[in-house]
This record gives sequence, C-alpha cells and structure tokens, in this order.
Amino acid sequence: MEFTANQIAALANGIVEGNGEVKLNTIAKIEEGHPGAISFLANPKYTHYIYSTGSSAVLVSRDFVPEHPVAATLIRVDDPYATVARLLTMVQELMNPRRAGIEEPCHIDTTATVAPDAFVGAFAYIGKNVRIGARAQIYPQAYIGDGVEIGEDTIIYAGVKIYHSCKVGNRCIIHSGAVIGADGFGFAPVDGGFEKIPQIGNVTIDDDVEIGANTTIDRAMMGSTRISKGVKLDNLIQIAHNCSVGESTAMAAQAGVAGSAKIGAHCMIGGQVGIGGHITVGDGAQIAAQSGTPKNVAPGARLFGSPAMDFDEYGKQTMTIRRLPRLYARVEELEKKLKEATDK
Amino acid sequence: MEFTANQIAALANGIVEGNGEVKLNTIAKIEEGHPGAISFLANPKYTHYIYSTGSSAVLVSRDFVPEHPVAATLIRVDDPYATVARLLTMVQELMNPRRAGIEEPCHIDTTATVAPDAFVGAFAYIGKNVRIGARAQIYPQAYIGDGVEIGEDTIIYAGVKIYHSCKVGNRCIIHSGAVIGADGFGFAPVDGGFEKIPQIGNVTIDDDVEIGANTTIDRAMMGSTRISKGVKLDNLIQIAHNCSVGESTAMAAQAGVAGSAKIGAHCMIGGQVGIGGHITVGDGAQIAAQSGTPKNVAPGARLFGSPAMDFDEYGKQTMTIRRLPRLYARVEELEKKLKEATDK
Amino acid sequence: MEFTANQIAALANGIVEGNGEVKLNTIAKIEEGHPGAISFLANPKYTHYIYSTGSSAVLVSRDFVPEHPVAATLIRVDDPYATVARLLTMVQELMNPRRAGIEEPCHIDTTATVAPDAFVGAFAYIGKNVRIGARAQIYPQAYIGDGVEIGEDTIIYAGVKIYHSCKVGNRCIIHSGAVIGADGFGFAPVDGGFEKIPQIGNVTIDDDVEIGANTTIDRAMMGSTRISKGVKLDNLIQIAHNCSVGESTAMAAQAGVAGSAKIGAHCMIGGQVGIGGHITVGDGAQIAAQSGTPKNVAPGARLFGSPAMDFDEYGKQTMTIRRLPRLYARVEELEKKLKEATDK
Repeated sequence: MEFTANQIAALANGIVEGNGEVKLNTIAKIEEGHPGAISFLANPKYTHYIYSTGSSAVLVSRDFVPEHPVAATLIRVDDPYATVARLLTMVQELMNPRRAGIEEPCHIDTTATVAPDAFVGAFAYIGKNVRIGARAQIYPQAYIGDGVEIGEDTIIYAGVKIYHSCKVGNRCIIHSGAVIGADGFGFAPVDGGFEKIPQIGNVTIDDDVEIGANTTIDRAMMGSTRISKGVKLDNLIQIAHNCSVGESTAMAAQAGVAGSAKIGAHCMIGGQVGIGGHITVGDGAQIAAQSGTPKNVAPGARLFGSPAMDFDEYGKQTMTIRRLPRLYARVEELEKKLKEATDK
Repeated sequence: MEFTANQIAALANGIVEGNGEVKLNTIAKIEEGHPGAISFLANPKYTHYIYSTGSSAVLVSRDFVPEHPVAATLIRVDDPYATVARLLTMVQELMNPRRAGIEEPCHIDTTATVAPDAFVGAFAYIGKNVRIGARAQIYPQAYIGDGVEIGEDTIIYAGVKIYHSCKVGNRCIIHSGAVIGADGFGFAPVDGGFEKIPQIGNVTIDDDVEIGANTTIDRAMMGSTRISKGVKLDNLIQIAHNCSVGESTAMAAQAGVAGSAKIGAHCMIGGQVGIGGHITVGDGAQIAAQSGTPKNVAPGARLFGSPAMDFDEYGKQTMTIRRLPRLYARVEELEKKLKEATDK
Repeated sequence: MEFTANQIAALANGIVEGNGEVKLNTIAKIEEGHPGAISFLANPKYTHYIYSTGSSAVLVSRDFVPEHPVAATLIRVDDPYATVARLLTMVQELMNPRRAGIEEPCHIDTTATVAPDAFVGAFAYIGKNVRIGARAQIYPQAYIGDGVEIGEDTIIYAGVKIYHSCKVGNRCIIHSGAVIGADGFGFAPVDGGFEKIPQIGNVTIDDDVEIGANTTIDRAMMGSTRISKGVKLDNLIQIAHNCSVGESTAMAAQAGVAGSAKIGAHCMIGGQVGIGGHITVGDGAQIAAQSGTPKNVAPGARLFGSPAMDFDEYGKQTMTIRRLPRLYARVEELEKKLKEATDK
C-alpha cells in the first residue's frame, strides 16, 4: 500500500506544501520519522521535531506557521489528529482485513446459526444452538460453547474460550486467550475439605466492549456476571463471579475484582488494583495502580494505596511518614532541653 | 427443562403451600426473583425478600412462619440450602452434560490409551503414551502432551495445555487456558547473559483439585511441583517450579508463589498475594489479599500487608500511623510549653 | 533410558569410586536421592547429605575428601555442576525431542514459507506470508498470524497466539498461552465513552528470548514493542504497547509494565512488580517483588515498596515506623516530666 501526499491531501480535503508526489507507505511518530512515513503534528510540545523529522510528510493544522525551514512535505488539514486516526483505521483494515465465510476444517454444530457474512476460522469450535451475528469474526481455534450468542461485527480473536450460555453484544472485541464464563470460585467447606457449589449462571457482555488478552471473566453462580456497554478491559484482568462493571468503565492490566463486587460507570481502575468482594464502587471513581480496596468506594472518589485511601489522606499520610526523621530529632531535642531545664 | 412445584417437592420430600402446578424453569436468588424461577431462603437476613420476591416458588424450612402474605408458592423442606444445591447440580448437569466418545477431527497418538467412556473433543491433541481415565472429559482444543496421565472423571476444559510427563488425578477440574508443566524459570548467569537450566521434572496434581482459568503451574527442575488433594486454585495464579501446595488449601485469583516454596494444608491465600521463593507457609495459615511474604509463615498465622505482618502487629502499626498527626500536635505543644517554661 | 556409572564417567572424563555398574535412570537432588538416581555435589553447604543420600551415584569434584563412609558410587569430575547441566540437557532432549515435518491436519497458507526441517503440529494455523525458520518447532494449536516471522531453532509451544506482522528471533522459546501482538490498550475519550485508537505497530522479539506461559505482549500503536536479545520473561507478565525491554533483563511472574515504558538492559524485576507508563528504568536496576514505580529509575538502583524507594531509604523508613511505639512512649514520658517540672 502506497499513497502520494497529493492523494492523502485529496482524501482529507487538505492543501499540500512541498513535494506532493512523495511516496508514503507507513505512519510514524514525528520523533521517529523516516523516509516513506507520514507523521502528524497535533500537540504543540512536539513542534520542534518538525524541523528535523525524517518523515517524508507531516499533517499539520491549517494555521501552522513554521519558524524554520521544513524538509518534509506539509499537508494542511482541519484536524491533523482526526486525519491520522482515519488513516490509522484504514491501515489497520488493510493489515488485518475482515473476512467472510467458513475456513475448513472447523466444527460447527448443525443446530448453530452463523450469519452468511460472518467468518469462522480453521479449528474453531461452534457448539450447539450458538448464534453468530452478521459480519462477526471468529478467528481460528476459538471455542464458542453451547448456547452462546455473539453479536454483529464482534471480533473473537484466535484461541478465545467462551463457555456455554454466555452472551456477547455487538461490535465487541475479545483478544486471544481471554476466557469468558469459566466457573466462579465457589466452594462450601465440608469436613475439612471443600464441596463445589455449581455455577449455573452466565456472563453477559453488552455492546462495544473490548476485553484484553488472557483476561478471565467467571460465570455467575446464579444470574449473570455483567459487563456493561463500552467497558474496556486490558490484559490479564480477573473479574470474579456475579460482579458487574458499569458503562464505559476502563480497567488497566492485571487488575482483579473479587466476587459480587459492583463497579459503577465511568470508573478508571489502574493496573494491578484489587477490589474486594461484595463491595460497591461508585460511578466515576478512580483507583490508582496497585491500590486495594476492601470497602465501598464513593462515587467520584480518587483512591491510592493498599488499603486504599482518599487522595488527600494518602498525600498527608505519605508526608507525615516522610517527615518522621525530623520528628525523632525534635523529640530528642526536647528530651535534651527538658533535661537541661530540670537539671538546673 | 421445566418442573412444577409439586414435582420439586416430590424430589425433595417437601410440602407445597400455594399453587403446586406453577411452572419453574430456572433458579434465582430470592432478591433477584422473576416468574418461572425457584428461590430458596436459608439465611434469616434475607427473610424480608420473601414477601416481595418475583420468584414463582421459594424453598423454605419446615418451621418457617411467614409474618406477611407470600405470593410465591412455598415448598417446605428439611434443608432449603441442601435442596437447592442438589437442584443446582442437576441444572448444571443438564446445561453442560458429560459426554463420551471421540469427536473428529482430533489427534490421538496410536500409543495413547483413552477409556471407552471418556470424551475427547474436536481439535484436541493427545500425545504419545498418554492415559485418559474413565469418564474423563477432554474438551476441544486441549493439548495433552506425551506421557501425561489424566485420572477418572476429570474435566479438562477447552484449550487447557498440559506439557509432557505431568500427572493429573481423579475428579479434577482444569479450566480453559490453564498451562500445566511449562518450564520453570531457571537460568544461570553466564557472561552477562543467561543460560537456560533444563527443567526435567514434572507437575503432579492429586485428586479433587480445581484449577482456574489461565492459571500456570510450572514443572519442577528435578522431581515434581506438587498440588495436593482437594486444593482449589482460582484464575490467573502462578505456581513456580518445585513448589508444593498442601491438602485442601485454597488460593484466590492472581496470587503468585515463587520457586520451591512449600505451602501447607488448609491455608487460605487471598487474591494478588505474593509468596517468596524457598519459604515455608505452615498449615492453616491465612494471608490477606495483596499481602506479600518473603519469610516463613507459622502454622495458623494470619498475615496482612506487604511485607506481611501478623494481624495484631499490622493492626497496631496501622493505628500508630493513623494517630501520627496527633503525635505531631503533641510534640508541637511540648515544644511550646517547654519554651514557655524555660523562657520564664 | 538407563546408563551405568561407568558410562557417565566415560562421558564426563571422570573417575569412578565404588560400583561402576550401578544402573542410573534419573537425576535427583542429593537431599531427595533414591535408588537409580544420580545426584551432584557442587555447593559445600550440601556436603552432609552425601553420607545419607539414597541416590545410587553422586558427581563430586576431583578433590572431594569424604569424612565418613559414602554408600553411593562417586564419580569424580572437573566440574560436577557443568556435568549435571550437560546430563540435564541430554535428558530434556530425550524427554521432549525436536521434531521435523508437518503433522496433519494443520493450516498452512499457500503463501507461507516453512523450512523443510521445521515442525508444524496438528491444528496449528500458519497465516499468509509467514516465514518459519530452520528447525523451528511450532507445536499443535499455535496461531501464527499473517506476515509473522519465526527465527531458526525457535520453539513455539502449544496454543501460543502471535498476531499478524510480529517478528520472533532465533533460538527463542515461547510457552503455551502467551499472546504476542494483541492490540495495545489505547482509547480516546469521546462523548463520555471511548473510541478505539487503531494499533498498527507490531512486536519484535530478538534472539534468545524466553517468554513464559500466559504472558501478554501488546503490539505498538505505531512502530514496535521491543523485547531485546536474551530477555527472560516469566509467566503471566504484561508488557504494554510501545514498551522496550533491554538486553538480558529478567522479569519474574505477574510483573506488569505500562505503556511506552523503557526498561534498560540487565535489570532484575521481581514478581508482581508494577512499572508505570512512559518511564525509564536504567540499566542494571533491581526492583523487589510487589514494588511499584511511577517514576524514572536510575541505572543500578535497587528499589523496594509501593511506591518504590531506594533500598537505604526503604530500610530507614521501615525502621522509623517500627520504632514508632517507642517514640510514642518517649513523648508520653516528656509530657509527664514537663508537667512535673512546671507543676513545681
């Protein structure tokens, strides 16, 4: 795939300054530019790179005024970031195009319904009564258990495992190695050992959810473990049985949520955070990386530490501890002075 | 699957109050009840829900006395929880029945032995000299390496990978994405780099063990990494080479155990806990979520924090730190008073 | 496989003391010895075990002088550890031999190039324009996306997933369940939700890298996520998009590195460590288990805690906190004395 600067300008309704015939075959950061690449300048902090970038062309805003000569071809557009985002999407689609049809050998149960324009890759397994929506992409070696529903335009990458009876919405993306609907961790103590509590619920994933590689979401004991619309989960996250995660909440890698916790909407959960069982995290809460909270979290709270504290409290406690050597010195000074005073 | 309240009462030796012909097709929590569902009331804390539950029927104890009218059909039984557990097991078996036979295409080496009533799913790989016990369920896309033994009634879910020479006992459950027997992390520093130390041991898993999704248990350098009878491991746990985990110990998600650690029996290890290499954790120890211990842990100890402390010590230290602002104020007061006293 | 002590002595240029015809069929630690096993004595700390070991033979250095009678056959060699390392490698190769050829059914795109002496296992998927180097081992159920390159002698274990366009060097080992090249976690906030930022970069893995089971390495947004020569990653590690990890750095299980972080060469990163986004960790830094650093780390630094501190600072702070109860007592004593002094 190769375009000229003139072609990209035409696409983005832009104006070319410099060599419009320069050939572009990739996108690069302006500070990592090289011949054949197109870069963009959206953040003024990066402006100085434009004078030395190795990229062949740079997307800039219409009102950009260079202070030094620029070797690269400039393409002036309304919104350089939006233009590059559109280019990125085009490139991604070219690199990793959607497919349609069945790649043999794969296993599709006779009772399953697969939309004619969906794709099912080789060695994928589609169980009984499964429904695969229009344009869905079921990559090779994926496992779709009995009774699972997969929405339209959803991408299930290679090797994803979805246990029976789970539901996945439209336009979702589930990355390789994610496991959806394994049994919740439920055992009753019996005679010094454990008896398994059957987990007969499922996992329901609403529209526009993205789930990272090797993340695990357990099925509910009864009812559903619920992932709401627009939730974004990074890699290696654990969501235990009967949890719910509210709309457009984002969670960074290796965070873990214990059983029956309810996470609100629009929360930001940092990497390696731990959230205790049966608690409620209010809408819009932000929890910093590696924090852990065994207690309910108020809406909009900003938490740090393990156990997690409010941002202000955490800051104060940190300062209080940092200043301790000075406190020791003050107490020593007091002891000396008091001794002097009483010795008199 | 659909039953009437009368049919369930007959099954559980119960007595029906209300409409015995009401149709039941699922089990729900009493607080999440809906028409067609049966719920149970075992914990008095939930009693108030019985007056408003949407469930069509509720299992209650024989001596339950309602204080208000109840719309749902009541089924009086000896032990509502035991009855619902039996129903859950029945439902689970109906939703996810055991199978027998070979689903093609799969790969079974000619030297492998598969019990005639075991199940091997499509795209599963069974290596040389493998032995699969009676009624074992090898789901699609599982990998069973050369020389592996799988016990009777054991379930290996889709996509589990078991490296060569490992042993899995009877009635075990291993969830999707778990990796058993990958090489231990052993390297000798050589010339500023590393030389791999071959890992020629294996993993042995005793009877009645459950292993969560995407959990990893590394093979021993020599000898065995050992998981004892009745151990329950949640998802995304790391057990390093040459560890042993004692009987009926339970570990929550994302806990990690470094190489050669010995964990006792009946321990409770919280989520995201880290256990250092070469240490011993005594029988019955309890380690709270996110704690980390680089040192031996006494039998029956209850640990908190990173590095982990005894429950009492941790509580005291937490209080001591919480009260620091008051200590600062007291020192300031002392300084003022002493100044006043000596200025006189 | 069975050897006599005489045969092993011949192999290692050693001298036998005792029964040279004793049969040896495995290697065991000296403290876990049993009949048929050969052990080695390299560390003087373990010398006392030689008098009671159950092993049939022990490799010792040429100058070893026993202080008590030894039942086991001794094999005197120049370097007992090097000899056992060679034996371990031999045993590993016997247990898990390299293979060549194609195991059917597997999917190899017609545009892919597989070296004739490479191995591709059943149910493996090899995409378009893939190149598989000489003697590479692609285990069953592995997924090698379009345009991926796999170097010579590299081992890709069962069920590894490598997304399109990634590069893996020579003599690498990637363990089961690892996911290489899933989309980086990049979203732009739009109207209270998120819009996906396409991730069009890749992952490049240099020679001699080992990657543990279920570890995830995300593809760059643009450019490459880079894993340098000789890096060793344990299980369940997260490396986010656009990170780089320097030569011969080792990382223990469940560590996580946030986006665009640059880790230097020869670093030692402990288990469950968290490294913040966009930071730099200098060459040779050591970060203790469960620590977390949101800030740059100096070359050679040794860090502890979350947030991480320098070893000395951490030690001082820990001591300062430990001694707090004594400080409280001193302040109380001061208050008492001052009261006495001023009451006079």
